[in-house]
Amino acid sequence: MSKLKTYILFFVLMVSSIAYSQSHPKLILTKKGVAEIRAQLNQLPMLQTSVQMAVRFVGDEMEKGIDVPLPKDMAGGYTHNCHKKNYLALQNAGVLFQITQDEKYAVFVRDMLMQYAELYPTLGLHPANRSYAPGKIFWQNLNDANWLVYASQAYDCVYDWLSSKERKKLEKDLFRPFADHLSVDSPQFYNRVHNHSTWGNAAVGMIGLVMNDQELIDRAFYGLKSDNIKADQKDNDGGLIKMPGQGQAGFFAQLDHLFSPDGYYTEGPYYQRYAMYPFVMFAEAIENCKPEVKIFEYRDSLLVKAVQTLLNLTDVNGLFFPINDAQKGMSYLSRELVSSVNIVYHFGGEDAGLLAVAEQQGQVMLDDTGLSVAKAIKEGKKTNYIKRSANYKDGASGTEGALGILRAGEGDKEICLVMKNTSQGMGHGHFDKLSFSLYDYMGEVLPDYGCARYVNIEQKFGGGYLPENNTWAKQTVAHNTLVVNGISHFGGSTDTGNEFHSDPFVFDATNKAIQIVSAKELNAYPGVEMHRTLALLADDRFEKPLLLDIFRATSDIENQYELPYHFVGQLLSANYEYVQAKELVPMGDSHGYQHLRLEAEGQAKGNNAKFTWFAKDHFYSITSYVSPEDKLQLVRSGANDPNFNLRSEPAFIIKKNPQKNAVFVSIVEAHGKYDRVTEFADNAFSSISKIDLLLNTNAYTAISFQDKNKNEWILILANKDAGKESQHELQINGADYKWSGAFYFVQSK
Amino acid sequence: MSKLKTYILFFVLMVSSIAYSQSHPKLILTKKGVAEIRAQLNQLPMLQTSVQMAVRFVGDEMEKGIDVPLPKDMAGGYTHNCHKKNYLALQNAGVLFQITQDEKYAVFVRDMLMQYAELYPTLGLHPANRSYAPGKIFWQNLNDANWLVYASQAYDCVYDWLSSKERKKLEKDLFRPFADHLSVDSPQFYNRVHNHSTWGNAAVGMIGLVMNDQELIDRAFYGLKSDNIKADQKDNDGGLIKMPGQGQAGFFAQLDHLFSPDGYYTEGPYYQRYAMYPFVMFAEAIENCKPEVKIFEYRDSLLVKAVQTLLNLTDVNGLFFPINDAQKGMSYLSRELVSSVNIVYHFGGEDAGLLAVAEQQGQVMLDDTGLSVAKAIKEGKKTNYIKRSANYKDGASGTEGALGILRAGEGDKEICLVMKNTSQGMGHGHFDKLSFSLYDYMGEVLPDYGCARYVNIEQKFGGGYLPENNTWAKQTVAHNTLVVNGISHFGGSTDTGNEFHSDPFVFDATNKAIQIVSAKELNAYPGVEMHRTLALLADDRFEKPLLLDIFRATSDIENQYELPYHFVGQLLSANYEYVQAKELVPMGDSHGYQHLRLEAEGQAKGNNAKFTWFAKDHFYSITSYVSPEDKLQLVRSGANDPNFNLRSEPAFIIKKNPQKNAVFVSIVEAHGKYDRVTEFADNAFSSISKIDLLLNTNAYTAISFQDKNKNEWILILANKDAGKESQHELQINGADYKWSGAFYFVQSK
Ligand SMILES: [Ca+2]
Ligand SMILES: [Ca+2]
Ligand SMILES: [Ca+2]
Ligand SMILES: [Mg+2]
Ligand SMILES: [Mg+2]
Ligand SMILES: [Mg+2]
Ligand SMILES: [Mg+2]
Repeated sequence: MSKLKTYILFFVLMVSSIAYSQSHPKLILTKKGVAEIRAQLNQLPMLQTSVQMAVRFVGDEMEKGIDVPLPKDMAGGYTHNCHKKNYLALQNAGVLFQITQDEKYAVFVRDMLMQYAELYPTLGLHPANRSYAPGKIFWQNLNDANWLVYASQAYDCVYDWLSSKERKKLEKDLFRPFADHLSVDSPQFYNRVHNHSTWGNAAVGMIGLVMNDQELIDRAFYGLKSDNIKADQKDNDGGLIKMPGQGQAGFFAQLDHLFSPDGYYTEGPYYQRYAMYPFVMFAEAIENCKPEVKIFEYRDSLLVKAVQTLLNLTDVNGLFFPINDAQKGMSYLSRELVSSVNIVYHFGGEDAGLLAVAEQQGQVMLDDTGLSVAKAIKEGKKTNYIKRSANYKDGASGTEGALGILRAGEGDKEICLVMKNTSQGMGHGHFDKLSFSLYDYMGEVLPDYGCARYVNIEQKFGGGYLPENNTWAKQTVAHNTLVVNGISHFGGSTDTGNEFHSDPFVFDATNKAIQIVSAKELNAYPGVEMHRTLALLADDRFEKPLLLDIFRATSDIENQYELPYHFVGQLLSANYEYVQAKELVPMGDSHGYQHLRLEAEGQAKGNNAKFTWFAKDHFYSITSYVSPEDKLQLVRSGANDPNFNLRSEPAFIIKKNPQKNAVFVSIVEAHGKYDRVTEFADNAFSSISKIDLLLNTNAYTAISFQDKNKNEWILILANKDAGKESQHELQINGADYKWSGAFYFVQSK
Repeated sequence: MSKLKTYILFFVLMVSSIAYSQSHPKLILTKKGVAEIRAQLNQLPMLQTSVQMAVRFVGDEMEKGIDVPLPKDMAGGYTHNCHKKNYLALQNAGVLFQITQDEKYAVFVRDMLMQYAELYPTLGLHPANRSYAPGKIFWQNLNDANWLVYASQAYDCVYDWLSSKERKKLEKDLFRPFADHLSVDSPQFYNRVHNHSTWGNAAVGMIGLVMNDQELIDRAFYGLKSDNIKADQKDNDGGLIKMPGQGQAGFFAQLDHLFSPDGYYTEGPYYQRYAMYPFVMFAEAIENCKPEVKIFEYRDSLLVKAVQTLLNLTDVNGLFFPINDAQKGMSYLSRELVSSVNIVYHFGGEDAGLLAVAEQQGQVMLDDTGLSVAKAIKEGKKTNYIKRSANYKDGASGTEGALGILRAGEGDKEICLVMKNTSQGMGHGHFDKLSFSLYDYMGEVLPDYGCARYVNIEQKFGGGYLPENNTWAKQTVAHNTLVVNGISHFGGSTDTGNEFHSDPFVFDATNKAIQIVSAKELNAYPGVEMHRTLALLADDRFEKPLLLDIFRATSDIENQYELPYHFVGQLLSANYEYVQAKELVPMGDSHGYQHLRLEAEGQAKGNNAKFTWFAKDHFYSITSYVSPEDKLQLVRSGANDPNFNLRSEPAFIIKKNPQKNAVFVSIVEAHGKYDRVTEFADNAFSSISKIDLLLNTNAYTAISFQDKNKNEWILILANKDAGKESQHELQINGADYKWSGAFYFVQSK
């Protein structure tokens, strides 16, 4: 550095330390933001509510007194919970000091941080010794990183209020060594491309920005220059620490590799929700402190897309689609999504639809972004948040399959389909290639089981993953997709599954009459080609959009093909005879069948099997084109479940006799409802009178279906050529069909 | 309603001034009422909503055109539904003619009635020939009576507008013969003490009042002077037409005999709801036309009590407790309860709490009573509707047992207990002596199964009672009460059950700390005396009120005693070892056991068995004092159910080895909840650490229980002497206890 530059730098530092109030807060809260919040708080109810929540929470903690215990317990234990509450209290107290300018909050933050600064230098690794990357405060570095992400916000808020001596002590004894432990001392934690490392990067980067420590900032952005991670080193979940070919680390590497170009996160929305917080918070900090980075524009506005994608991966109630290891019930009301929505509203183009989500969330961040949201809502800028059909490409380059979402119908006629044509989803992935779930305006119709876990419910295995997560929830038969020879996809091997992805074939949501998603899976069962096409058909002749499902399996050898439909509710009626089993026994001893019991079995008299079920006082029917030899099974989960860890839930399975090639064709209808007060049943019967398979060759599959008024529709799929411009010509039953594109759909009568 | 329609409606209201004769309407609507409704409609939103609903409904019917088909079908069929819609359209159109004074409504009523007047004289008995009392328009007279109750209101509304020639024709060809068919031609229908006859009486009486026909009015009030009903004649439900000793018939006989002095209806609230409509409507008509009768004061204001009792027989959601044959989900939002609430508000003392119910109902009657309610709501008179603890005596004289309701806690701490110590409840009664159900602030915790029926859902046996209603829903093991030797109460004989009732022993809801209901049953099992005591205990040391259950069975011979607790949700954990069954098979072949499968069985290590379950994201526990020999069973309904008519629901059964005398002591806790968004489990563990049986003699039973902080409580029951003033003295484990009254409850540590 030249002498002149040094001089200028020195001068600037002098001036800013004289007018010290100009430098902090700057990380999440800003000087400008604080001034505006203070000026407008009175007029903004959502902001007031959020301040009141913080006041109550911090007030309770202050009343109890500061407790910084010697680290000892695992997750859920006393010291764990205590340190977790502490970092939340620190962050909230810091913010309240800025907003209320009541010094008691600054005193609380200072006193607690000082206790940590006393404790930290005395600590070795956490005594639990259970993690691949132990923390010092918590059993795993992941939680230590959480701590620092929050504590750095608190430090930023009281920075100017502290004496320089206090700052010096905190940085020397606490923050710098803390950041070092997360990074240089724990490369197996810090230098991965993984959500754990994202927390690590954000923690190191955020404290680095507060302290203006360029070394830490660089370390956060670009990772450690060297690590000694072995090629086969694994984490507690059995995941590889370093993916083969991983060249980079740090925050930008996470942004480059953890999301697809569409902002889809391969582990699925439940984990994406968890991962978003360090991404959006660190990004906000970077934008505030280093706007020249243009972090929200990075990779074609990746973070904005990621949040929008995540919000679109929810059902009508805002609940995330529970693909992979996901506990059901998690929704966009979660804390992480409050931050995400606020930050993306403020820094990502002020999409007015996001305000509708924010309003449902009922709280905002106490920073510039929350202020923006609260103001915009107050000003009546809110519009509906419109969820849409979309095909989200998976994989960092967008070349590893896709998650297809189709939505049709409005209000109580809404139908939503989720089809999983992605990659495995890593260690938390399920063996569910080409599987789908179906939702209506109330929620699940044909559900995914989710994970077998009761998060934080101690009675159930301490809240951890249950054995049945592997033996049932991940298995193919627990999903709405094809099981071949009673074995799960990839033989149930995650490592094998990780090598492959499904191949999207068609996605077309441009025509409201037929929205279609089609994909193939060539690797789940070596020697078997699976090709599934799902379509939502909207026609006023039906109460709600129909789901059409065409599943083809092709092989050179005979296989046993079984297609389950997991449903919610209770059988009402079937158009075929079935016999209830006298004794209920497990249906197998592996691949999930050990957890199923056969409750009833029947066979269709002709080529159409129909069954109608009843759920939450609504009627649903599935009509399937079958062979009279096909076994139509009603099954229920719960066998070999010694601790009653599984929910008792029914499924309908179409089981074909061994054959080389099979095609399953079904139409699922949501129709009608029952009113328990008027005792009136409206539209209780299926409207589909017939499904026919007209043709099924390597090149084409054609089906027709009729409603009860003899209206008829035909759908022809080109199985090999999905080209949008490709010309096709075909004769079926003496009639000529000619069209361009992957499929042809027409009302024929 | 479109703005144009609204405009027209109010325009018509403004200019109308044609004065018809002073005599009609007088039945439900009155001249004075019409004038007030017309004057105030603009200011009363609930009344407007209700008018708009009627305008829409009648408008649709007028658009479709009048259809009065030749009677042919059973319930649910075309002609049945058509005639049903017709009477509703008649009644609504009549009212709209009065309120809007738009003649098109009068024309519609006249034209439709004229078509009926053409048709009726041509009709013989309904061709279905399936009822013990066939109608002419419908398959059963009950529906014909419905028709006349509604049509007489329509006739009243257009009476003055019709020419005297038109009136003459209608009365001669339609109304008089219609009334005669219901009564003199059908004594087996008309001269019973039964809800069917109530409809008949009301129909005959209401048309009699409109026509000012004293013969019909007398016939309605006092029945037929003579009938030729045989002593053993039965109805379609197998009920005796004439109860032994029945001396009277007609409306006053119904008022005298169908309700207990507390307004409880022995069939239970589901049927009481159905029965209320003719009672309150005819009563309103009588009050309007013959105020000197003082019908609402009759029998100590019986009708007012009946409605208040019915409203109190609901859970937090307004759903009727589903005792006896009741379909779940029926609530005080039903049409019958709109009338009941409006009429009882207006004629029964203007209880402001009723306005809260009316507001939830969202509509009012279009008459003087609905006007009163709408006005009072508009004037802000509404107060909360407070449901309370109550012991409703059963039987016409109040001497046939009682239904005990205990409520404790407020808001999300509310707990409600229903204990059935009544008589059998006639043909729709269940074998459930001393059974209970438990509710919390969300609804069912330990439920009654209700009936096995899908009312009006054609796929399920045409909507009629399913075979499983008898084989499962009525059986004792389907209830939360004691089964002795695997046999239902009274051997499952309704005729036997009808001869007896349980004996209330204690009911005391005066002390918030302990509300108690206790009863004995001496006849369900000859030779076995059953004595159950249930108490709600409210103490701040527990999150919500506790349910304490002490069930004693005493016999001279050894019996097998089993006590089921049917619960909602899923087992979380147990403090004892249990083994899941490998094969699930029916647990028996009769008395309901054929529908149960044993899923798991275990035994306690000591004297306390605890299991915790999880339902709707809330935690519940039951802790039971048991012997280590007792079998602790988890069972599930659904066996021998060839058409999947039953819901698959779990129960916990305590099964004792054969013994003469047994005592079951349990505490049920509702505690804690889980938040799926924060993934935080609050108060997930039971607070009860120990239950002890201190003493169990013929004279006294004493138990103690402790919480996890070693607080201890003792409850002593005097088993023989429930006298409030009786003095008791007892030594237990060296300590002396001395008290007066049936029980003694004290915190002992
Ligand atoms: Ca799954
Ligand atoms: Ca009946
Ligand atoms: Ca029952
Ligand atoms: Mg993991
Ligand atoms: Mg899955
Ligand atoms: Mg009956
Ligand atoms: Mg019952």
